[in-house]
Amino acid sequence: MTLPALDRFLSTPEIAAAFSDVALLQAMFDFEAALARAQAAEGLIPASAATAIAGVCKVELFDAEAIIGASGRAGSLAIPLVDQLRRSVALFDPEAARHVHHGSTSQDAIDSALALCTKRALVPVGRDLAGLIDALLALAETHVDTPLLARTLMQPALPTSFGLKCANWAAPLVRSRARLHELARGSLALQLGGAVGTLAVMGPRAGAVAQRMAADLGLALPPAPWHTQRDEWLRLGLEVAVLTGSLGKIGADLALMSQAEVAELAEPSAPGRGGSSAMPHKRNPVAAMTALAAAQRAPARAAALLGAMGQAHERGLGDWQAEIAEWPALWTSAHGALAALLEAMRGLQVDPVRMLRNLAEHGPLEEPPPPAHLQAAATLARRRVAELRAQNSAIDLSLAATNES
Amino acid sequence: MTLPALDRFLSTPEIAAAFSDVALLQAMFDFEAALARAQAAEGLIPASAATAIAGVCKVELFDAEAIIGASGRAGSLAIPLVDQLRRSVALFDPEAARHVHHGSTSQDAIDSALALCTKRALVPVGRDLAGLIDALLALAETHVDTPLLARTLMQPALPTSFGLKCANWAAPLVRSRARLHELARGSLALQLGGAVGTLAVMGPRAGAVAQRMAADLGLALPPAPWHTQRDEWLRLGLEVAVLTGSLGKIGADLALMSQAEVAELAEPSAPGRGGSSAMPHKRNPVAAMTALAAAQRAPARAAALLGAMGQAHERGLGDWQAEIAEWPALWTSAHGALAALLEAMRGLQVDPVRMLRNLAEHGPLEEPPPPAHLQAAATLARRRVAELRAQNSAIDLSLAATNES
Amino acid sequence: MTLPALDRFLSTPEIAAAFSDVALLQAMFDFEAALARAQAAEGLIPASAATAIAGVCKVELFDAEAIIGASGRAGSLAIPLVDQLRRSVALFDPEAARHVHHGSTSQDAIDSALALCTKRALVPVGRDLAGLIDALLALAETHVDTPLLARTLMQPALPTSFGLKCANWAAPLVRSRARLHELARGSLALQLGGAVGTLAVMGPRAGAVAQRMAADLGLALPPAPWHTQRDEWLRLGLEVAVLTGSLGKIGADLALMSQAEVAELAEPSAPGRGGSSAMPHKRNPVAAMTALAAAQRAPARAAALLGAMGQAHERGLGDWQAEIAEWPALWTSAHGALAALLEAMRGLQVDPVRMLRNLAEHGPLEEPPPPAHLQAAATLARRRVAELRAQNSAIDLSLAATNES
Amino acid sequence: MTLPALDRFLSTPEIAAAFSDVALLQAMFDFEAALARAQAAEGLIPASAATAIAGVCKVELFDAEAIIGASGRAGSLAIPLVDQLRRSVALFDPEAARHVHHGSTSQDAIDSALALCTKRALVPVGRDLAGLIDALLALAETHVDTPLLARTLMQPALPTSFGLKCANWAAPLVRSRARLHELARGSLALQLGGAVGTLAVMGPRAGAVAQRMAADLGLALPPAPWHTQRDEWLRLGLEVAVLTGSLGKIGADLALMSQAEVAELAEPSAPGRGGSSAMPHKRNPVAAMTALAAAQRAPARAAALLGAMGQAHERGLGDWQAEIAEWPALWTSAHGALAALLEAMRGLQVDPVRMLRNLAEHGPLEEPPPPAHLQAAATLARRRVAELRAQNSAIDLSLAATNES
Repeated sequence: MTLPALDRFLSTPEIAAAFSDVALLQAMFDFEAALARAQAAEGLIPASAATAIAGVCKVELFDAEAIIGASGRAGSLAIPLVDQLRRSVALFDPEAARHVHHGSTSQDAIDSALALCTKRALVPVGRDLAGLIDALLALAETHVDTPLLARTLMQPALPTSFGLKCANWAAPLVRSRARLHELARGSLALQLGGAVGTLAVMGPRAGAVAQRMAADLGLALPPAPWHTQRDEWLRLGLEVAVLTGSLGKIGADLALMSQAEVAELAEPSAPGRGGSSAMPHKRNPVAAMTALAAAQRAPARAAALLGAMGQAHERGLGDWQAEIAEWPALWTSAHGALAALLEAMRGLQVDPVRMLRNLAEHGPLEEPPPPAHLQAAATLARRRVAELRAQNSAIDLSLAATNES
Repeated sequence: MTLPALDRFLSTPEIAAAFSDVALLQAMFDFEAALARAQAAEGLIPASAATAIAGVCKVELFDAEAIIGASGRAGSLAIPLVDQLRRSVALFDPEAARHVHHGSTSQDAIDSALALCTKRALVPVGRDLAGLIDALLALAETHVDTPLLARTLMQPALPTSFGLKCANWAAPLVRSRARLHELARGSLALQLGGAVGTLAVMGPRAGAVAQRMAADLGLALPPAPWHTQRDEWLRLGLEVAVLTGSLGKIGADLALMSQAEVAELAEPSAPGRGGSSAMPHKRNPVAAMTALAAAQRAPARAAALLGAMGQAHERGLGDWQAEIAEWPALWTSAHGALAALLEAMRGLQVDPVRMLRNLAEHGPLEEPPPPAHLQAAATLARRRVAELRAQNSAIDLSLAATNES
Repeated sequence: MTLPALDRFLSTPEIAAAFSDVALLQAMFDFEAALARAQAAEGLIPASAATAIAGVCKVELFDAEAIIGASGRAGSLAIPLVDQLRRSVALFDPEAARHVHHGSTSQDAIDSALALCTKRALVPVGRDLAGLIDALLALAETHVDTPLLARTLMQPALPTSFGLKCANWAAPLVRSRARLHELARGSLALQLGGAVGTLAVMGPRAGAVAQRMAADLGLALPPAPWHTQRDEWLRLGLEVAVLTGSLGKIGADLALMSQAEVAELAEPSAPGRGGSSAMPHKRNPVAAMTALAAAQRAPARAAALLGAMGQAHERGLGDWQAEIAEWPALWTSAHGALAALLEAMRGLQVDPVRMLRNLAEHGPLEEPPPPAHLQAAATLARRRVAELRAQNSAIDLSLAATNES
Repeated sequence: MTLPALDRFLSTPEIAAAFSDVALLQAMFDFEAALARAQAAEGLIPASAATAIAGVCKVELFDAEAIIGASGRAGSLAIPLVDQLRRSVALFDPEAARHVHHGSTSQDAIDSALALCTKRALVPVGRDLAGLIDALLALAETHVDTPLLARTLMQPALPTSFGLKCANWAAPLVRSRARLHELARGSLALQLGGAVGTLAVMGPRAGAVAQRMAADLGLALPPAPWHTQRDEWLRLGLEVAVLTGSLGKIGADLALMSQAEVAELAEPSAPGRGGSSAMPHKRNPVAAMTALAAAQRAPARAAALLGAMGQAHERGLGDWQAEIAEWPALWTSAHGALAALLEAMRGLQVDPVRMLRNLAEHGPLEEPPPPAHLQAAATLARRRVAELRAQNSAIDLSLAATNES
């Protein structure tokens, strides 16, 4: 999609492209082509039909606007798309046209296409998440011993180290990274159930067709159609919401520590970054802003997904449509937050002198004395950085293994 | 905005246009033009500057994509827009360029522009809401005496009349119609506070400038800037969520009564309406689907708006941005539901014979006997139709009076 | 209810009492007594039966735990209550027992009872809201000219006055106060529809019965039963959510301004208030905490109410039960926030010297110079205080008029 | 907690007991006792002090109401509890009193206690989830070949088998069962961070203390304190929300199939089950009601948890308090739904004759003919039952292994 202006601003072109109308329609065409190829390989339709169908499954051959425009009346994006596809195939091979979308249903095409788009969306999300973890662990390492005033309930508490704070920021991101890739393996699954989830039209070859399609499209082969069992798919979305929450916490701390009266951190400055139309001197913390905005929105999206789970009978009315419409924005705003924080953390301006001064001014005199606190924090930070690096490397290895296989 | 495909399908082109990028940017230019004119009238800037500024405040003179594209870095849509506007004005009148956006701030332009877009969105919403009320009251009148099995907790209960059911569907819509227009009078307000809500830069003429601008733009003049006091604005959004909930209730009943085993109602049939890619014989209740989908999504949007109320200090970080990004979708999906139900109710296929049969088969034998129940329902229906018509006419009159004045 | 420990802590005993089990059951008995009295007055049941019924409608005569305990199997609190009531009446007057709950339904008793509890809950909410407004306007008046650094996007902006900030905090509260009382007049309505909303069993006297009951119970007489038309009732709940959002904004500002590095405000200190189990020196801003916690929770509650609007047919399955279970917590946490902020604002420690110092240190040098900004802020603050006082007095008058009538 | 009447009705006494005030306070005392024992074992406090402290850590020795009552002012439940504990210990051993709560903080005690309560809550949830899976798989097996009309978009579609429908209901429950137990291993973790998450006060023995405490309390040992990193804890809550969504889907289908006009299923009937105060003949589907109500509420709770993730700095203000207050209800209503559906499914009345009749009346004539559809459904159902049984047994084994170790 081309995101609306008020959203674009909180997202990135890259993730918007993954869910663009063109990408979604092409993914639906990819589904139809893979279906035809698999059915031909299993002898359900003629090989020539599959060739004819796959040959025209290119979004640029179609009037995307006309397909989308017709979806309202039809109540589904797949109906006009399949209709247009049949007509186009018929121009070349009237016989093949009969085999388009054979034994499948609208939701098969749309769910599979959305899984494909999401798989592509996971690429920049995974990349920038890894990048942000690296940036935070680098900061943690650098500042393992940098004294910082810890604050609890928004009041000065005791000494900690800025390195520990950075390691604490990184830890949930490492967990989310592991979880996202793990969940993706099951959640990004082919949908193929036919009209009512029995694949009856394809007869005993249905299972083999599904297997071929999953391999062809690079999607997981689910144990069964999941038309109205949305739990596995939703877990991935909920993990994006959790990730966004963790980014929001970083954004909150960043905003608080960037207050002029605190002045321990500042986002990198660059021409045109975080200006003000009214006060030219200002530098607004736009990365914190983007992360906070994403974190404000994600819980509501997650609730909408969960609220749409009660899909009636074999395919739902209204709730499925709501669910898929809510899905992309969870990703586009998460990536906006990720990309913004990545830039901010890579160029973060840290002021250890000010951290020390705030600690001296506001930190209480305590037993044990500050050095003991700092040492405890540094020790914990050092251990955490090592552990998180190890966990992160294990994720790298696991991803590399998956990609090779 | 051009809605993404998965949303477009649940909305209408008309409401999407009200919140399109072009409409939003034009509304921001309208704000800048009105600001200049009002400031000139109050002697704060030269009349020639106002003329120069207002003369170029046309979105078609600008590269909208470039403005939106630059908003990410800037952290605001207004910064690149004002910047481009200044440059364009400077081409004609370098002196005038200094007076662009004088004494105002980004949020002034964006909040006011969104209020303008919303005002335009209210036109189709108000029109189709009135249309749907009329359609439902007409049905109610026709079926005042049509026996219907009432169901409670999804089980057969006692006799009622279909006319009473239609009147009950209409009643919350009449209340929402009254409330929407009443709230709009206060919620669709000019935002003009300057950098920190004091309008200090404009000095003592600030109030007069605001008054002129509100009149010029057709927005309410608020008692004070509302940069971080979002309650009045939100009440309008929450009313849209309430309306959507009432539409969802109608959609739920419509879907239930359209089940083949119940078969008391059917949405109008037409070529291409509610087809199935897998089962050509099917007629899916697409209006019910659209209303149910909207009702699934609105609560989450409302929660996102409410959750963003804690905007810090004089202008918020992240929460305001989240709020305005969430706002349009509440309207676009509400209008999708409204338009779909309007079409469905105007052509609704009612089967009184089947209603009677279901009542005979599943209605319990009761004291008092069915005629007494039916008479009570008919009497109540008749009274309610009259009352609702009267209330609805009062809204018509009030709107006419407002528009004339 | 006796609130669970983790909730009690964020609420008040007073509001918890309004929704306690005993209060709810008594309100249900009040409904049954009023029903019997009204039906006797209209000749539908013998006067002696009404006397017998009303005579035992006292919660202390019943085993409340047994009634609640039986509600699970029954699927409704009203079924065991009515059953117990019948048995008790029968002990005294077997003939009268037949007339208990005549022509009514479970939801009538429960909705009306919840409206009665809510009416009682509105008393402390209204009182403390008025008190908080007074406290804020008093602060606004005192500090009309107190210079304060305004902050936007969490960064220093330009000068304003602390008085204006206080007036801005008060403004949405005045609007909520007006709205709450206005909405209550319609939302706190009798529910009386009988099994399916037609009141058929009571025949032509049904309307007169409802009128008498509404007057007897001090509830509004709604235009029709509202078993599955929840909009008017919900608007009141949504206004509580809006109010809570406005309180959360005050809490957010209070927490930010109470940071040690900012130190412009402090909550009143008192023995046992806001201590720490780990750091005896700490004073935690517990009023801000309570308001922020309430504001975190209210949006989800509001979403749950809105999400439950699609109640099927004549009485819903599951969604109505969810709605009424969600309702009380919205009030109990709102009152917790109100009471906490009231105490905080009455004893608020304001440090004008520190405000000035922060302004001097972090406020930018600007044209116009600070005095012009401050003067604009003070002028606006002065006007707003006067306007808000006037509006608030108008609410007082309107309430007094209502109570007298 | 003793649930409020309107909640109790949708929950069970067993799960309410797991989160009762007494259970929560006892779990906090368990934490304090375990802390003292571990610190004594590590030589941080005298063994006699640990004995003295642990000896009085019994909730029945304290005035629970007084502790809870004081928590409001304190802003924390732990402060009055620790205070009371100190006083009680001092009665026996004044020296030992100095060592109470040593090096810990309020949030340590409360988070750990809530994890302990949740661990206990998982017992009935896990048991009834396993029971419901068994009941559904038994139904699936019995009805592998029972013809049923599949419905899509609330309209008749093609034949399926009731056994497949039951297997599809069971599948997400098996996934949730696996996930709940897997997540619990990490999420139900000790919280021990001391004032700011560095455990500085305990010095180098802090890690060993944590290890002992985790073992003592039967909680996981987390890699680090998680005061403001709530992701792992939340994942468990979100899985409960997913489970509730899956239960809601079963409830929705059950309600739809129990409609009198469909009449394919009925909940078991028993005296006092699902009655009506107005219509004695009615049997309301109370299990479906309970599941639907839970599914209406869970998304909002999940959103509230996610929305509270942005906890500032080292310990949050307001959001943490909101999160823990929202937590129990997610569990209590999930268990209400589970227990209700378990009872319903164990005694489910299935009408295969009516299923066949509905299929014959409303199922379209199709190619392939119904037998092919039915055979495909039966084959898939048979395979799915076997797979789900195998997965479920694997979970049994994994749980048994965990419990033995």
